Amino acid sequence: MMPLPLFYVDDLIRRALAEDISYLDTTSDYMIAEDARDTAYLVAKADGVLCGLDVAMRVFELLDDTFEKDVYLQDGAVVKKGDRIAQYTGYTRALLKGERTALNLLQHMSGIATATAEAVKLVEGTRAAITDTRKTLPGMRSLQKYAVTVGGGKNHRFNLSDGAMLKDNHIDAAGGITNAVKMLRGKLGHMVKIEVETRNLDEVKEAVEVGADIIMLDNMSCEMMREAVAIVDGRALLEASGGITASTLRAVAETGVDVISIGALTHSVKAMDISMKMDV
Amino acid sequence: MMPLPLFYVDDLIRRALAEDISYLDTTSDYMIAEDARDTAYLVAKADGVLCGLDVAMRVFELLDDTFEKDVYLQDGAVVKKGDRIAQYTGYTRALLKGERTALNLLQHMSGIATATAEAVKLVEGTRAAITDTRKTLPGMRSLQKYAVTVGGGKNHRFNLSDGAMLKDNHIDAAGGITNAVKMLRGKLGHMVKIEVETRNLDEVKEAVEVGADIIMLDNMSCEMMREAVAIVDGRALLEASGGITASTLRAVAETGVDVISIGALTHSVKAMDISMKMDV
Amino acid sequence: MMPLPLFYVDDLIRRALAEDISYLDTTSDYMIAEDARDTAYLVAKADGVLCGLDVAMRVFELLDDTFEKDVYLQDGAVVKKGDRIAQYTGYTRALLKGERTALNLLQHMSGIATATAEAVKLVEGTRAAITDTRKTLPGMRSLQKYAVTVGGGKNHRFNLSDGAMLKDNHIDAAGGITNAVKMLRGKLGHMVKIEVETRNLDEVKEAVEVGADIIMLDNMSCEMMREAVAIVDGRALLEASGGITASTLRAVAETGVDVISIGALTHSVKAMDISMKMDV
Amino acid sequence: MMPLPLFYVDDLIRRALAEDISYLDTTSDYMIAEDARDTAYLVAKADGVLCGLDVAMRVFELLDDTFEKDVYLQDGAVVKKGDRIAQYTGYTRALLKGERTALNLLQHMSGIATATAEAVKLVEGTRAAITDTRKTLPGMRSLQKYAVTVGGGKNHRFNLSDGAMLKDNHIDAAGGITNAVKMLRGKLGHMVKIEVETRNLDEVKEAVEVGADIIMLDNMSCEMMREAVAIVDGRALLEASGGITASTLRAVAETGVDVISIGALTHSVKAMDISMKMDV
Amino acid sequence: MMPLPLFYVDDLIRRALAEDISYLDTTSDYMIAEDARDTAYLVAKADGVLCGLDVAMRVFELLDDTFEKDVYLQDGAVVKKGDRIAQYTGYTRALLKGERTALNLLQHMSGIATATAEAVKLVEGTRAAITDTRKTLPGMRSLQKYAVTVGGGKNHRFNLSDGAMLKDNHIDAAGGITNAVKMLRGKLGHMVKIEVETRNLDEVKEAVEVGADIIMLDNMSCEMMREAVAIVDGRALLEASGGITASTLRAVAETGVDVISIGALTHSVKAMDISMKMDV
Amino acid sequence: MMPLPLFYVDDLIRRALAEDISYLDTTSDYMIAEDARDTAYLVAKADGVLCGLDVAMRVFELLDDTFEKDVYLQDGAVVKKGDRIAQYTGYTRALLKGERTALNLLQHMSGIATATAEAVKLVEGTRAAITDTRKTLPGMRSLQKYAVTVGGGKNHRFNLSDGAMLKDNHIDAAGGITNAVKMLRGKLGHMVKIEVETRNLDEVKEAVEVGADIIMLDNMSCEMMREAVAIVDGRALLEASGGITASTLRAVAETGVDVISIGALTHSVKAMDISMKMDV
Repeated sequence: MMPLPLFYVDDLIRRALAEDISYLDTTSDYMIAEDARDTAYLVAKADGVLCGLDVAMRVFELLDDTFEKDVYLQDGAVVKKGDRIAQYTGYTRALLKGERTALNLLQHMSGIATATAEAVKLVEGTRAAITDTRKTLPGMRSLQKYAVTVGGGKNHRFNLSDGAMLKDNHIDAAGGITNAVKMLRGKLGHMVKIEVETRNLDEVKEAVEVGADIIMLDNMSCEMMREAVAIVDGRALLEASGGITASTLRAVAETGVDVISIGALTHSVKAMDISMKMDV
Repeated sequence: MMPLPLFYVDDLIRRALAEDISYLDTTSDYMIAEDARDTAYLVAKADGVLCGLDVAMRVFELLDDTFEKDVYLQDGAVVKKGDRIAQYTGYTRALLKGERTALNLLQHMSGIATATAEAVKLVEGTRAAITDTRKTLPGMRSLQKYAVTVGGGKNHRFNLSDGAMLKDNHIDAAGGITNAVKMLRGKLGHMVKIEVETRNLDEVKEAVEVGADIIMLDNMSCEMMREAVAIVDGRALLEASGGITASTLRAVAETGVDVISIGALTHSVKAMDISMKMDV
Repeated sequence: MMPLPLFYVDDLIRRALAEDISYLDTTSDYMIAEDARDTAYLVAKADGVLCGLDVAMRVFELLDDTFEKDVYLQDGAVVKKGDRIAQYTGYTRALLKGERTALNLLQHMSGIATATAEAVKLVEGTRAAITDTRKTLPGMRSLQKYAVTVGGGKNHRFNLSDGAMLKDNHIDAAGGITNAVKMLRGKLGHMVKIEVETRNLDEVKEAVEVGADIIMLDNMSCEMMREAVAIVDGRALLEASGGITASTLRAVAETGVDVISIGALTHSVKAMDISMKMDV
Repeated sequence: MMPLPLFYVDDLIRRALAEDISYLDTTSDYMIAEDARDTAYLVAKADGVLCGLDVAMRVFELLDDTFEKDVYLQDGAVVKKGDRIAQYTGYTRALLKGERTALNLLQHMSGIATATAEAVKLVEGTRAAITDTRKTLPGMRSLQKYAVTVGGGKNHRFNLSDGAMLKDNHIDAAGGITNAVKMLRGKLGHMVKIEVETRNLDEVKEAVEVGADIIMLDNMSCEMMREAVAIVDGRALLEASGGITASTLRAVAETGVDVISIGALTHSVKAMDISMKMDV
Repeated sequence: MMPLPLFYVDDLIRRALAEDISYLDTTSDYMIAEDARDTAYLVAKADGVLCGLDVAMRVFELLDDTFEKDVYLQDGAVVKKGDRIAQYTGYTRALLKGERTALNLLQHMSGIATATAEAVKLVEGTRAAITDTRKTLPGMRSLQKYAVTVGGGKNHRFNLSDGAMLKDNHIDAAGGITNAVKMLRGKLGHMVKIEVETRNLDEVKEAVEVGADIIMLDNMSCEMMREAVAIVDGRALLEASGGITASTLRAVAETGVDVISIGALTHSVKAMDISMKMDV
Repeated sequence: MMPLPLFYVDDLIRRALAEDISYLDTTSDYMIAEDARDTAYLVAKADGVLCGLDVAMRVFELLDDTFEKDVYLQDGAVVKKGDRIAQYTGYTRALLKGERTALNLLQHMSGIATATAEAVKLVEGTRAAITDTRKTLPGMRSLQKYAVTVGGGKNHRFNLSDGAMLKDNHIDAAGGITNAVKMLRGKLGHMVKIEVETRNLDEVKEAVEVGADIIMLDNMSCEMMREAVAIVDGRALLEASGGITASTLRAVAETGVDVISIGALTHSVKAMDISMKMDV
């Protein structure tokens, strides 16, 4: 049973298939016999972390109820170029109709897991966790956030309803960080944490004093972040955010922050190259 | 009136907003007065080709029927870092609730247009057109294909129903390229073109002889592609495909092919950095 | 595996069932025992071409997961009044609840296939293919276009996105046929053909000279169409269109046009009479 | 305010437009300037009863929020070939994109209203009302039943939930008509009428004795129906049903039945010819 | 085969699950092994009438295709606190993910059936039937009306389309009850009954004279209702309506009315306490 | 701008209207002139806290784009029986078609807000906040949770994805509370709090030692809860849960717990009586 809920996955796949098939796959429906069957397999064309295999297999299940699969690996597996991932059998027409949709999903999800794993590796040995953001693609947030966890990252708040993030506008409206946090705490449910965005060390101080659960250090230099870590001294979690790339990630992690959030994990995904072959 | 149909755009935006707001934006709904209004603007944080501005503005229109906008640029505009793109006014809560969804769409679409424009520029002066593929993200094909045209690219077939592409399996089932093209031509509607995938020059010859409309040169060397161009001599369109990157693109274009299709335009999108500011 | 995609068929059937059952089938749910089972069969009440059998059977499958069928014929079969088409068994309630929806679909699709086959027969021996148009019923285009192919017809473009048709307004906006075709060719993807609507022989000449792929002869007399065939001489496909009926069809075909499109195939469908009997 | 609910109409139109536009109307979006505007009008190309004008206009409203219309006629108007129905103005692209969908709906609905009006006319002076059946097209029942009323017909039960119809299977399960009606009456809500299908006069007698609200005379001869009318003598409504055509309709009505139901009104619709012209 | 149609039930359940699971059930997906399986059972924590068991079981089936159940009772069973209702086995994660959604549905439906059964019991021995109203919760009318039947009640009209109810506004527009009923009868289909709302005995008299099928006695005293029963004397059905509670129900029933409609059955539901236990 | 997102509200209303109108409101569409207009007002028939006014008004806006309203009160207003809430004008048909749907929503939401306000009042002066649970009705969670906040309550976690709740099964799988909390903390995002269900004081002690954010005291006696408060001494939040009613609520609050969750707020809602009158 895959962790992502079936109602979500099926809905997404149906939408993808509807884009790809207006009524017939003219080439396959006109050229391939209705009862022809075939076997295909998935093979990695690059190194990476596999993610989305159940989702990809589900594409074929929705097209063909005779589909049978033999899965060699699971989401989270580290694969090398050339590794066989799964082999499966079904109607040839179904294999051809589903190929692109299945690969589009699998390559995207594996791309996210792979990039996340690379980031996680870069911060190894520090206290920093890697997390995603709300910078996701429309309709794909669940898929993308799941892929981040498969790559070893953690998830930031899912959306605007399940975590509170005080930004400039909120703070100004309340007349400062202290007022804002107090006012918000009085209204929020007891399961919701409050994060405060800060741009300098005075704001960090104010936020930690009033009891913010998390303090975001927005686009700060590593030196400033180190001072923030010293000031806060474990009384709140510290999240580094803003334009952090592979080349700066390690240095940021070494400042002692607890969390590093990276929008590019989901907004600028490089698909992992995976192929489907039918010449078994 | 934006080219993309409203029913599609609205549906996509509602799905994105539903992911981002379970019921309340707790921070904004608890901290910002219901009738507070604000003005915001969009500013480019990088150079690129703008795409998706109407879509991004539509996010706010769906949240706030008092929303008013002043748009300075149109899709297709070449923007420089620091350029102001649009300024708009609405309920502060609506601006805050829609910000992320609007930016996610705008950055993704502009990312595609920008990458396409770069590819188009690289082949300038050759006969080659740049096209996308079916390697798109689920639910986003219309958006992505539109962004490719905004960047100056052309669109490959939209889906499996509106263009015929003979691959190995189809050709084997028919007993060779000649049989396959004849058989398919006898069944296809008169508006649909036939493309044949080829892997060597013998296949190219067979395809052109039997009257394929387009011949795909799959993962061929530039030298082999040049020979294909000579063999075909204008009797069919030639499409280069397979792992073409920025560094090889010019050389491929100079072989004389008519079309170069690039999956990465839509499967590996780098979001263009664009920001929303409320400190007008 | 039926050619029409399951996600489309299921969605259409669910919509039809939802119209027909608000909550209970009061008569059947109150009168028939929950575990009562029955066998039913489909019988043709008129001669025609069968189409939609898989779709009709799917209605019962969606209502009853114990449903079992024995199908005697396939889509495309020529049936005579009195022929048994399929026999099946399931919960009596499910058979009664699904009967009307299944027949509505089957009769409509078979009606289209039958009318198409009659048209195809009328043009036998000529070079003319029979095609449909975009004059379809809302939500049913895929179903209807598929039925046309089952009757031996071919499909015109599926929609506004996958074939280009230059009409008066487009041509006027561009300043004539020649300009229009050139301008459009410069923007269209390489998989899309261009059809030009013409109303006289001068327009036909201009269209063929500038390289239109297809030329529509709109409401022309047979004599004028013969001249058009002579002028074009195989350099483009010619499509006759406009108010062609059974009585004029043969004459139109004998002018030598390549394609005859008939809106009535899908906009004025006569259902084929097929019955479901439970007195096995 | 049109009688059909907007949520239903909009949903149907969006589905129709989605079939017709995958992403762009390539011809119009590439050839017509974004801000070009035009005026168009609808003109009857045949005599008939107009139906669906609000629905057709709504197509353009959903595509173009600058759309303005001047409507000359209302649903139910008797139109002659050549009559202008409405004139309207909007973006040229929107007019071209919506034309086919608007006409498909308008022609279908007007076709139903026209055929219904013809049937109603044929029975003028008798006590018989003309009604539709559940033989409708998937997703279109509301539209079709409304069109029947516009043509002067009445509606049979909407679906399986809001009228009870005892057929063979129900009657057999209960052990006869008398038992069936009593059993069903004991369970049905007080707003639901019971109709009993009968095939001979003994069944008619039994049905009227046990208090059926309506008795269907299934495929009976006119003579038998006259006898049924005499037997029942106003104690129940009588509905003639089964293969009644224009040539037999008057005779059936003259038997004295109260209702004549005609499946062909909705299952075999002949579209009424209506055109959109842009050469105002 | 449960009476409620699967397309409706599945749609409702998917919507409920989508509310409850944004992407992961973090607690269960992180803490329970993917292949762990468990057995659970349902137990009544209060006395009542069971309703919705198939619906509740369906929740798990949609989450887990290995789910197996052993059902001890059926909808309509009278249960006592402590009774075991069903036992079932599946993936532990699926059991935990579905528990709340399944119970929410089962408790609500059983609550309605229980309250209905109590009302039915209170009127035992009188001629009055208990019915629901259109005071239902959004998206749940089918479920709620079904639950009323399970509790022994009957259903009032399903909606505005399948029963006619003349209220003040309609009557005023027509110029009185007599005109209103005649005018409406002339337009309504033959399967639809007419109910007239009345507020005094003069209105009752007018309604019965003009042949109303049902007369609603709106908020009348028991004495007035008794007089209405005498006046009508079986020529129409009489429905008592308006603020009838458990304490007044018997007295109302003893006036001799045919139907008593109670909005609270569906608008003010008290959930029946039912628990899921996994410590089998 | 109402806090609930429009896409959610509109979707819910359309679903409710679709249940209530299959195609026509036969009574109103046949009896009321198409252009008749009327004014109506809402009046409280009981004391309570108003909630859902924007939602109710939206029903009419979706039916009638000429609808105009004059709103006297806002969500959260304390109303007395007889208070006028809003007055509005529109097409008479639209007012009649929307009346029931609007009231069903308004009465349900006001019922929740009223019951919540009563609970909040009962605990006044203690430290206890009143919260809802996940015991909501399908498709209505957002609406219901919003209504709880309007009544002065706070929201528990929205769903399984945005708060972690360790129950028996999770704890057993991990081998005890300590292991479970540590294991879960290692995987959860930094924005998510952990709540641990406890049944005795040993479990409370273990949970507070390992750093649970919230400890649920499940069905404990007031005495045991007081001891728990003493043990925890502010190191975690304490939530009382399980069968707490109006008669026990104050005593529970006085034990010193931080949060009291009450399922009945959303699973057993008593609609607040509100009426629409058209005799302005």
